[in-house]
Amino acid sequence: MENNVIFESREALEALLDARNFAAANAAVKDLMPADAAALLEELSEQKKPVLFRLLPKELAADAFAYMSPESQELLVRAFSDRELEEVMDQLFLDDAVDMIEEMPANVVKKILRHVDSETRRMINQMLNYPKDSAGSIMTMEYVDLKRGMTVEQAFERIRRTGVDKETIYTCYVTDSRRKLLGIVTVKDLLLAQKDQIIRDIMETNVKFVRTHTDQEEAARELSRYDFLALPVTDAEDRLVGIVTVDDAIDVIQEEATEDIEKMAAMAPSDRPYLKTTVWATWRKRAPWLLFLMISATFTSGIISSFEDALAASVVLTSFIPMLMDTGGNSGGQASATIIRGLSLGEIQYRDVPRVLLKECSVALLCGGTLAAANFIKLLCFDRVGPAVALVVCVTLVAAMVVANLVGSGLPVLAKRLGLDPTVTASPLITTIVDAVALMIYFNIAKLVLGI
Amino acid sequence: MENNVIFESREALEALLDARNFAAANAAVKDLMPADAAALLEELSEQKKPVLFRLLPKELAADAFAYMSPESQELLVRAFSDRELEEVMDQLFLDDAVDMIEEMPANVVKKILRHVDSETRRMINQMLNYPKDSAGSIMTMEYVDLKRGMTVEQAFERIRRTGVDKETIYTCYVTDSRRKLLGIVTVKDLLLAQKDQIIRDIMETNVKFVRTHTDQEEAARELSRYDFLALPVTDAEDRLVGIVTVDDAIDVIQEEATEDIEKMAAMAPSDRPYLKTTVWATWRKRAPWLLFLMISATFTSGIISSFEDALAASVVLTSFIPMLMDTGGNSGGQASATIIRGLSLGEIQYRDVPRVLLKECSVALLCGGTLAAANFIKLLCFDRVGPAVALVVCVTLVAAMVVANLVGSGLPVLAKRLGLDPTVTASPLITTIVDAVALMIYFNIAKLVLGI
Repeated sequence: MENNVIFESREALEALLDARNFAAANAAVKDLMPADAAALLEELSEQKKPVLFRLLPKELAADAFAYMSPESQELLVRAFSDRELEEVMDQLFLDDAVDMIEEMPANVVKKILRHVDSETRRMINQMLNYPKDSAGSIMTMEYVDLKRGMTVEQAFERIRRTGVDKETIYTCYVTDSRRKLLGIVTVKDLLLAQKDQIIRDIMETNVKFVRTHTDQEEAARELSRYDFLALPVTDAEDRLVGIVTVDDAIDVIQEEATEDIEKMAAMAPSDRPYLKTTVWATWRKRAPWLLFLMISATFTSGIISSFEDALAASVVLTSFIPMLMDTGGNSGGQASATIIRGLSLGEIQYRDVPRVLLKECSVALLCGGTLAAANFIKLLCFDRVGPAVALVVCVTLVAAMVVANLVGSGLPVLAKRLGLDPTVTASPLITTIVDAVALMIYFNIAKLVLGI
Repeated sequence: MENNVIFESREALEALLDARNFAAANAAVKDLMPADAAALLEELSEQKKPVLFRLLPKELAADAFAYMSPESQELLVRAFSDRELEEVMDQLFLDDAVDMIEEMPANVVKKILRHVDSETRRMINQMLNYPKDSAGSIMTMEYVDLKRGMTVEQAFERIRRTGVDKETIYTCYVTDSRRKLLGIVTVKDLLLAQKDQIIRDIMETNVKFVRTHTDQEEAARELSRYDFLALPVTDAEDRLVGIVTVDDAIDVIQEEATEDIEKMAAMAPSDRPYLKTTVWATWRKRAPWLLFLMISATFTSGIISSFEDALAASVVLTSFIPMLMDTGGNSGGQASATIIRGLSLGEIQYRDVPRVLLKECSVALLCGGTLAAANFIKLLCFDRVGPAVALVVCVTLVAAMVVANLVGSGLPVLAKRLGLDPTVTASPLITTIVDAVALMIYFNIAKLVLGI
């Protein structure tokens, strides 16, 4: 709804810019939310982006800048005068600045770093050194710190004096002279306390925190587990170096879910929106997996070839191969998707593995029984095959599903135990394994029962 | 890490409870975070749950209660004395109370509603009437409301007086006498303003909101889009009725991602953690889809049967069926997963459909070309089939992938346009369609080239 309004107004706005009616264009955009202004800028042509950007009120422009794609940010930075760049960098939160710099070519980074003060430059350089996808790489170093001996009134003074540039002021961090984290105080605590109470007496000392090298996904999960607005990040010496705020945690949660879905569908994960990814980039992400899976499928072909005689003797068996393979693959895919998501949300631990395998085995027997019963009737009444062939098909069906569910649930856990990403063992890879096993079962049961 | 600590301490705690050493048990748990205390309670036996719950400090007990599973909540409510129930209900936030009541049997609900005051009962009943998965069903009615004419100092007084029971105080809502939403003021704005400034002059009047019947997923997306801590919810007359807080939005985002993953793997979605779902419940969620897909796969069998003569003439063709079907299914699955996630995150709109189809077609040609080239060499050098058969296989491969990607990307969009859930068109369904089409292409090309 919101989006449509923006995209409808885009054409009207472009007309205003073409007519150089800047006053009207300014009036049209000045009350936008930063995220909406960014979406609008994103849609404009390269020439018009800097024009509209300069028409935005200064604060809105800087806020919108943080929401833009790296391409548009680069384009604007190249177009900026020194003054403009300084103003934007001054307004930008440190973590947003770092996110941007990570995506820029070296010459643009140089231009940017020339226009920030030396303290900011030092902090940016420090944050750039944290590993990708770590808590350190998504945290901000702009938090409110308090001292244990302050009164509530002094704390408020400090918040008023330093808070304007902080990404969040609602959780304040109490540190000692060596920046060691001693406790936290929320603004709610402060508001509900007496003015002359001492921070030491009202701070919460049982503080949850993560390390700079903690995986960003785990940081986001901790934050969401405890319903925090921000989570402190400390170095190996327990010194507070930054905080992860809830808005960045939400972004991580969404990115990780997208990544899981991409990997489950056998694609290398992408951190770009679909429409912004080129055809070549998409090809690079998908082709290797398709190729790998195609080569794995050769085993299946090999198995079929080696049973050519049996198939020639009973051609009707061939027609059930797709149904058996698909059903096994679907069942294994259900199991693996469930387990991968459970591992990802932390709902399933290693100690649960026996329970998981037992459960998947039971579910496979139940589902397999249901499907086999339906299939048996269909085979006899509609396909008019003999009861021996029907038996072979139905027994294979149940056996394939049990194998599929065990592989589908066991493989992700095994991958995780080996330190691999469980997601890459998802549906397509499992399908390939299950196909091969299902065919082996099929032909061997056929030989046994039909005596071919 | 955190989890392991809790589960290791569980056995020590159970020993303390068995030995009736309540003082030591209390000391062991009194400083836990509410989420951790809830996880611990969840693991205890039915008899020990109420015992430990009563050992927790009152406030922690009530906070932990909100994090527990409906089963454990029900167990505790049944065990509570009238006094205990009153205390817990008094501490519980309204939205948590409603979440709990939704899962309880009628007699427990009656017991609960007897122990809340009439105003709370009225609000609970109102919230129970909002449709499942709507913004109304996840919002809380406990927010701080201010009047336009108040000074900043008066606003702080109101926050101090009423804030203790509110889920968030950091965004305050300015309403008129008829509860119409006029603007918002954050505590940060208030802290940075002068004491005698009037709310009217500092409030933000450009307010984003959703309606009570807005889908919870859209509410969560709006909140995350604008990096809000809370999003106001209004009724059809623009009156403020509640707010959705960021912690509930995160829960919605995670639930919806899980639901997407489950539906993509052809399962009915579940709102329970995996290990808490019974085998029968899992069977009910999975079997119908497996059955439906198995019946659809019959078409594939039918196609193979109708080409039995061709297959008997060239049995080698059979051995490539799995590879062709799998690769087509994998490629279509990649396309559909990408598009479904894009639709779900709002990155892809209807107007993008032509671009999407064109792009998927190009990617399929590129990936198909890569795979066909690799396959052609393999067929000639390793499988030692004739060039005519190799040609048939490779042309089919490319054609199947193009069809797969068009179906995989088009079907989810079509489903959404028709008001259906795009997720149900995911991989398994697409695989079934693509299998049938791929086989038709395969046999027809084979007939044409090989003249069989």
